[in-house]
Amino acid sequence: MGYFLGSASAEGTAFLLALLLMLVAAKLMAELFERLRQPAVAGEILAGVIIGPSVLGLVAPSEVTNDLAELGVIFLLFTVGLETKPAAIFRVGRSAAVVAVLGVVTPFVGGWLLMRAWGATGVEAMFVGTAMVATSVGITARVLSGMGLLDAPTARIILGAAVIDDILGLLVLAVVSSAAAGTVNYAEIGTTAALAIGFTVFVALVGARVVTRAAPRITTLRIGHPLFVFGLLLCLGLAVAASYIGVAAIIGAFLAGMALAEGAEGDHTMHKQTNGVTEFLVPFFLVNIGMQLKLDVFRDPSVIVLSVLVTLVAVVAKLLGCGAGAWNLGARRAAQVGMGMVPRGEVGIVVAQIGLSLAVINAELYGVVLFMAVATTLIAPPFLKLLYATETAAIAEVAPADAGGIVVTDDLSQIG
Amino acid sequence: MGYFLGSASAEGTAFLLALLLMLVAAKLMAELFERLRQPAVAGEILAGVIIGPSVLGLVAPSEVTNDLAELGVIFLLFTVGLETKPAAIFRVGRSAAVVAVLGVVTPFVGGWLLMRAWGATGVEAMFVGTAMVATSVGITARVLSGMGLLDAPTARIILGAAVIDDILGLLVLAVVSSAAAGTVNYAEIGTTAALAIGFTVFVALVGARVVTRAAPRITTLRIGHPLFVFGLLLCLGLAVAASYIGVAAIIGAFLAGMALAEGAEGDHTMHKQTNGVTEFLVPFFLVNIGMQLKLDVFRDPSVIVLSVLVTLVAVVAKLLGCGAGAWNLGARRAAQVGMGMVPRGEVGIVVAQIGLSLAVINAELYGVVLFMAVATTLIAPPFLKLLYATETAAIAEVAPADAGGIVVTDDLSQIG
Repeated sequence: MGYFLGSASAEGTAFLLALLLMLVAAKLMAELFERLRQPAVAGEILAGVIIGPSVLGLVAPSEVTNDLAELGVIFLLFTVGLETKPAAIFRVGRSAAVVAVLGVVTPFVGGWLLMRAWGATGVEAMFVGTAMVATSVGITARVLSGMGLLDAPTARIILGAAVIDDILGLLVLAVVSSAAAGTVNYAEIGTTAALAIGFTVFVALVGARVVTRAAPRITTLRIGHPLFVFGLLLCLGLAVAASYIGVAAIIGAFLAGMALAEGAEGDHTMHKQTNGVTEFLVPFFLVNIGMQLKLDVFRDPSVIVLSVLVTLVAVVAKLLGCGAGAWNLGARRAAQVGMGMVPRGEVGIVVAQIGLSLAVINAELYGVVLFMAVATTLIAPPFLKLLYATETAAIAEVAPADAGGIVVTDDLSQIG
Repeated sequence: MGYFLGSASAEGTAFLLALLLMLVAAKLMAELFERLRQPAVAGEILAGVIIGPSVLGLVAPSEVTNDLAELGVIFLLFTVGLETKPAAIFRVGRSAAVVAVLGVVTPFVGGWLLMRAWGATGVEAMFVGTAMVATSVGITARVLSGMGLLDAPTARIILGAAVIDDILGLLVLAVVSSAAAGTVNYAEIGTTAALAIGFTVFVALVGARVVTRAAPRITTLRIGHPLFVFGLLLCLGLAVAASYIGVAAIIGAFLAGMALAEGAEGDHTMHKQTNGVTEFLVPFFLVNIGMQLKLDVFRDPSVIVLSVLVTLVAVVAKLLGCGAGAWNLGARRAAQVGMGMVPRGEVGIVVAQIGLSLAVINAELYGVVLFMAVATTLIAPPFLKLLYATETAAIAEVAPADAGGIVVTDDLSQIG
C-alpha cells in the first residue's frame, strides 16, 4: 500500500531520488576524471549532461534543482570568501580592474563582430556579446581550491576581477536590455551602477571590521554553534541584499565570507561545518549546469558550426583580453588569469534566459549560447590544471613538512 | 535596472529571502527560548507559526520549503544514527517493541473513542485515531541531543520504539485508508509489512558490517572527502529505498547513520561536516512544521474545543501507553519514554494530508489534526527538559573533567 502513502509522499520521494541520482552521477564522474588526471569539476558538469534531458533524461532541471544549485554556488563562493582576506584582494585591485575591463570589452566586441559577420541582427549580436561577457568564477574557484591554490597571486586577481566583472556585466546587460526594449534610461542605469559599486566597496571595506568587533559577542549567544549560525545568516543576508541591489547573489556571499575570514579565523569547527554544506550542495550546482544543455537545436548543421565558432571566440576573447590585462606578470601567469576567466557557467545561462524571455534571441540562438556557456565551463578546468602545474608541484613539495599548520587549507584543498 | 535581471532572477531572490526569513526567525526564537530556559526546538517551531500564513504571513509553505524541511529531518535522523551503535538499540529491542505497540494501540483507541463520542463518523474517527498514532522522533531526538543525552537508556528505547512505531503506523494507515476506500487487501498489506520489516531488520543487522568492511576502500578514492560523500550517498540512498518500500525516509536515514556509526567512528571531520549540513537544514524542518498551522478554521468555537480535547487525548494516550510499556524502568523513566513519544510533528501532518486528499476528513477536521500535530510537538520539549533534569545535571558534573574525550558528543550537544 505504498500507493496510499504515495498520494502524499510520492512528490517527496521523487525529489529525493532526483538528488540521489545527481549526487551519484556527479561523484562517479568526479572519481573517473580524477583517475584520468582531469579536474573533478568537469566530470561533475558532464555528469549533468549525461543524466540530463539531452542524453539519458533521468533528471530534468526543475525549480528545486535550480534552487539547490543556487544555494550550492552561494556556499561555494562563501567558502572561497572565508579563505580570502580583504587586504589580499585590495593589493591586486588595480590589476584586477584592468583584467575585468579588458575581459568585458574584448568578448563583447568579439561576439558582436562574429554575429554580425554571421548575418545576425544588431540586437541579437549585442545579446550574444553580452552573454560572452559573463564570468562564472565559481568554476575556477573550485578548480583552484581543489589544487590548494586559492592564495596564489593570480587566484586573487581572478577573484577580484570576477567581482568587478560581475558589476560591469550587470551594466552591459542593463544597457543592452533597455536598448533592445527601445529606450535607454541612463539615469536609472547610473543609479544601479552607483548602488552596486557602493554596496560592494562598502561591504568589502567595513564588513571585516564589523564582524571582528561583533564576534566576541556572538560567541556568548545561547544557541548552538553561534558563529556558524551567524555565518549562515551573513551569507544568506548579503546574498539577498546583493541580489536586490542587482549584483549577483554569489558576490554577496563572497563578501560575507571575506568579512568572516578575519573575525572567525581560528574557528576550525565553523570552517568544517561550512565545508560540509558546500561539499553537499556544490554537486547540484555543477550537475545542474550540465543538465541545462539542449542538444535538440543541433539537428541543423549550421547551428553546430555557429556554436563552435561562438565558443571559440568566447575562449580566445577572454584569454586575450584578460591575459593582456595581466601581461605584466609574465606570459604563464597572464594565461592563468585569462583561462581562469573563461568559464561562463550559470551566469551565461542566466543572460541567455533573459534574452529568450525578452524575445530578442530565438530558441536556436538560445541553444547556441547555452552550448557556449556549458562548453567554456568544461574546457577551462583541464587547461587551468595544466597552467597551474608548477604551483601544484611546489605545494606538493612543501605540504608534507608543513602539514600541521595548514589544516584549513588542506581541508579546502579537498573541495574539488 | 534590477528589474531586467529581475525577470530571470526574481524567483531565485524570493527563494533566498524566504530561507533568510525562516533562518533569522528560527534563531531569534531559539535564542529567546534558551534564555527563558525553554528548549530551542519549541522556539523554532513557534517561529514558523509566527512568520507563517496564520499570523504574519511573511513566508508560506511551498514545494521548496517542504523539500528543504524533508532534507532537514532526514539529516537530523542521519546525525542521530551516527551517534547510535546498532547494538545499543538491539539491547533495548524488547522494551522498545512493547513501548511501540502500546503507543500505537492506546492513542488509536483513545482518538477513536473521543471522535465517536463527539459524533464523528466511523471513518473520520479511524482517521483521527491514525493521525494520533504517529510519532515525530526527530523532535525528541533534537531535544535529547541538545542536552547531550542521546546515549541515555531511555533515549535508546525511544529511538528503537520510534522505528517500530513508524512501521506499525504505516500498517494502521494502510488498513484504515483501504477500509475508507471500501476494500481491505490483506495480502497486499501483508506484503508491505514483510517488506518494511525485512528492509529495516536487514539494514540494521548487515549495514554496519558492510560499511565497516567497505570503509578502508572508500578512503582510497580520489574524490575529495570520500567518507563524507559516501555518508551522503548512503543517507540519501537508504532514505529513497525506505520511501519506495513504504517506510518513512527518515528511518532509512537513521539506519544509514547507524551503519556508519561504527565504520566511520574516528572521522571527526566527517562528523563535523555532517553536523554543518544538519545545523543548516534542521531550522527549515522546524519552522516548516509551525508554518503548516491553519488558524482560520478556529472561528467556530466548537472546533477549538475539539482541538483542545484531541490534543489532550493525544498527549495522555502516548504518555500512558508508552509509559506503561516502560513501567519496569520506574515512574520517572517511564514518563521520559512516554513524553518522548508525544510529538506528532510532520508525521501527523502527512497523515492529515492523506485523509484530506482521500476526502475522508473535511477542512475543519484537517485543521484539528494539524493543531494536534503542532501542539503536541510544542508541548513535549519543555516537559522533556524537566523530566531529564537529573541526567543533565549529572552530565554537567562530569563534563568539565572529561572535556577532551567527548569531542563528538560535545559537538552534537550543541545541535539543539
